[in-house]
Amino acid sequence: MGTHGNLIIGQSGGATAVINASLVGAVEAALQDTRVGQIYGMWHGIQGLLQDEITDLRAQPAQLWSEIKRTPSAALGSCRYKLKEHDLERIIETFRRYEIRALLYIGGNDSADTVHRIAQAARAANYALQAISVPKTIDNDLPLTDHCPGYGSAARFIAMATMDSTMNTLSMPWHYPVKIIETMGRDAGWLTAAAALGKRDERDAPHVLLLPEKTFHPDRYLAQVEEAYRRYGYAVVVAAETVRDEHGQALGAVGQVGVDAFQHPLLSGAAQYLVELVKERLKLRARFDKPGDLQRMASFCVSEVDREEAYLVGQAGVQAALAGETDKMVTLQRQDEPHYHCTTTLAELSEVANVQRLLPEDFLDEQNSMVTDAFLNYARPLIGEPLPVYPRLERTKVTL
Amino acid sequence: MGTHGNLIIGQSGGATAVINASLVGAVEAALQDTRVGQIYGMWHGIQGLLQDEITDLRAQPAQLWSEIKRTPSAALGSCRYKLKEHDLERIIETFRRYEIRALLYIGGNDSADTVHRIAQAARAANYALQAISVPKTIDNDLPLTDHCPGYGSAARFIAMATMDSTMNTLSMPWHYPVKIIETMGRDAGWLTAAAALGKRDERDAPHVLLLPEKTFHPDRYLAQVEEAYRRYGYAVVVAAETVRDEHGQALGAVGQVGVDAFQHPLLSGAAQYLVELVKERLKLRARFDKPGDLQRMASFCVSEVDREEAYLVGQAGVQAALAGETDKMVTLQRQDEPHYHCTTTLAELSEVANVQRLLPEDFLDEQNSMVTDAFLNYARPLIGEPLPVYPRLERTKVTL
Repeated sequence: MGTHGNLIIGQSGGATAVINASLVGAVEAALQDTRVGQIYGMWHGIQGLLQDEITDLRAQPAQLWSEIKRTPSAALGSCRYKLKEHDLERIIETFRRYEIRALLYIGGNDSADTVHRIAQAARAANYALQAISVPKTIDNDLPLTDHCPGYGSAARFIAMATMDSTMNTLSMPWHYPVKIIETMGRDAGWLTAAAALGKRDERDAPHVLLLPEKTFHPDRYLAQVEEAYRRYGYAVVVAAETVRDEHGQALGAVGQVGVDAFQHPLLSGAAQYLVELVKERLKLRARFDKPGDLQRMASFCVSEVDREEAYLVGQAGVQAALAGETDKMVTLQRQDEPHYHCTTTLAELSEVANVQRLLPEDFLDEQNSMVTDAFLNYARPLIGEPLPVYPRLERTKVTL
Repeated sequence: MGTHGNLIIGQSGGATAVINASLVGAVEAALQDTRVGQIYGMWHGIQGLLQDEITDLRAQPAQLWSEIKRTPSAALGSCRYKLKEHDLERIIETFRRYEIRALLYIGGNDSADTVHRIAQAARAANYALQAISVPKTIDNDLPLTDHCPGYGSAARFIAMATMDSTMNTLSMPWHYPVKIIETMGRDAGWLTAAAALGKRDERDAPHVLLLPEKTFHPDRYLAQVEEAYRRYGYAVVVAAETVRDEHGQALGAVGQVGVDAFQHPLLSGAAQYLVELVKERLKLRARFDKPGDLQRMASFCVSEVDREEAYLVGQAGVQAALAGETDKMVTLQRQDEPHYHCTTTLAELSEVANVQRLLPEDFLDEQNSMVTDAFLNYARPLIGEPLPVYPRLERTKVTL
C-alpha cells in the first residue's frame, strides 16, 4: 500500500456548484487504489499549503463524501493566489516533508498556471512529482477541453433565470417593458450566451446579448432595445458585467461621477447603467436582475450532467497521476455517438496556462447581438435535463 | 347545468411562481360542479375585462391545466389597475351581458379592494353577484390570513439564495468579506426575514437584516457589519429594496446625484449604496446580489406546500361563490395537529382591503437586526421541504 507515495488535493479560484464533485471524484478514486498512501487536502489551496494547512482526507467520515458531492462551493476552501518565485522552493520542501508524490489542483486558468510552475520546479529540483490540473470554471474559458465543469450548472441557472424572470415581464409587459439581466463571465461570453438556451423563436427572450467579446455601442444597444420593444412589446437584454465601451471602460465604472451625502463615489454597475440609459433615452420603464454569486452556486439549479462530468475529471486526474503523467490538465472530449457523453484525455499545461478561450466567431450572430444555432447545439447537452416548455392558454376572445 | 350562472376568473398584481395553481384550483373546482355555466377568464385582469378581453376556459385543452399548475407567472396575464368610478358601471354591464354571476379575482391588497368595490357596486345595482377575492402575494402582507400563497416559494428562494451565495463567500472569506443581498417586499419585511431560515447559529448568514419596518441608520449598519466581520471573518446583509433612512428617503434614491456622459441621472439602487458605504467607510471589499424578478418567479425553487395551498384557495374561492358568499376573501387557517396543514375560511373584504400586515414586534429582534425564533417557527412550514444542511470537512491539521 502506498507504493506511489502520498497524494494532495486542492481547490482554487472562484467556486462552483459542482467543484466538490471533482474533489469527491478524486478522493474516491484514490481511496479505491492501494498504490495511494496518504490522501491530503490543502486548506484554501496553495495559500494554505504554504502555511502547512494540510488535512487528512482519509480521516473524514466515509459517508461524508456522497454528501459533499452534492454540496456547492469548495469544501476544502479556495484561494486566489499568484505564486511568487520563492514559494516554489517552499512547496517542494513541503512535498518532501509530507512525502507527497502527486498533486491534484482543481481550478481555472490561474490554477493551471500554478500547477505548471510547480511541475517545472519539481523537475528542476529533481523531485519526482505527478502534478495534474483538474479543470473548473463557470466562465468556460479554458482551452483544449470541450467545456469546463461548472459551466453547465451556471449556464442552466442563467437559462432558467432568463426564462422565469421573463415570465414575470410577460404577465404585464407594459409595466416594466425592458429588463436587463447581468451575468458573470470575465472576458468570455459563454455564460451570457447561455441565456439564449430557452429561446424558441425571435419573440422570446433574450432579444439582445451584450458579450464581453464585443465593444458596447450605446446607440446600437438602444436601437436594438427599441426594435424589440416595438415588435414584441417588451425587450430582455442579458449583459456580461464586464462589457466595455469603445474607450475600453467597463460600463459599471462609467457612473463613477457622483458622491453622495457620505462623500463616497457612486458606482452604478453595468446593469443599472443599462437601465438608466433606457429610461433616459427611450423613456421606457426598465429594471434589472443581478443574480451575482448565486449563478455560480445555486444548489437548486445544478446540471446533473455537469456534476457527473466534474466527478469524472477528478477521478481521471488521480488515474493520470498514478499512470505517471505530470504537467498535464485533464480535458473533456465530447462524444456524440450513440448519444452525448464525454471521455477524458490530457493536455499539456504549457498549452493551457494563460490561454483564454473566447466565444468563437461561428457561435456569434453579431448582426443581431445573438448567438447561432451552432452555439445552442454545443451548449444544450451540458445543462442537463431539457429546459421546461411553458404552456400558454389559448387567447380566443368571447364576444357577446 | 349552469344553475348558478357563469363564472369569471382573473389574475392581478405582481405574479408569483404559484399564482397559476390558484387559477387551476378554481378552474378544476368549477369544471367539477354542474351548477357552473360558462367558465370565463379575463385577459390581463380587470383591465382586460374593461375591454371585453374575455376568453372561454372550458375551450382550453383538458390536459393543459396540470401543466399550467406548474408554470410560473399569470397564465391569464395580470394588471395593476386602480378602478375608476365609471369603470364599475361598465363592469356590471359586462357581467349582465355575459350572464356572469360569480367573480374570482386572484391578487393582493389592491385586488382585494377591486373585488370589494365591485361587490358593493353590484349590490347597489341590485345585480346578484358572488364576488370572491383569492389571496396571492410574495409580500405576505394581507391581513386575516395566516399567510399568503406565493410567499412560501419566494421565501424558499430567498432562504436558499442566502445559503448558497454565502457558501461562495465562505470559500474565500477575505476575497469579498461583505455581501449584500437585495430583496423585494414593499413595506413589509416578511421576505427579507425569510433569509434567516437557513441560519443555524450566530456565525451563519445573514448577520444583519434591513427591514422596511425599521428606519435605516448608516452608522448602526456599519457598526453591525464591522462587528460580524470582526467576529466571523465575513458579513452577509439582507436588505429590502424599500428600506428608508430617517428622512424617509429610499436608499436607492440617495445616489441620485450624478449625471453620466449621456446627461442622465444615476441611481445607485439600495444594494449598491450599501456596498459603497462599506467600501468607503469600513475599507472592506463588498459586492451584492439582486435576484430581482427571479425571487418571485423561480420555477426551480418552488415550495410544494405553497403550490398546494395556492391550489386550495382557488378551489375554496369557487366553493364559496357557489355557497352564495360575496364580498369575501379566502383565508388560510393554520392547523398544527396532527402536523402542519391549512384549512380555509372567509374574511370580510371590508376588513382586508387597504390593510397591510407588517412583521409583528414579537417576530423582530431589533437589538440584533434579526428575527426571532417565533418568526422562524411561523415561516418554516411554509417553504416546503426542509432546507439542506451542508456538511463540512473536519479541519484537522496534519503536522510533520
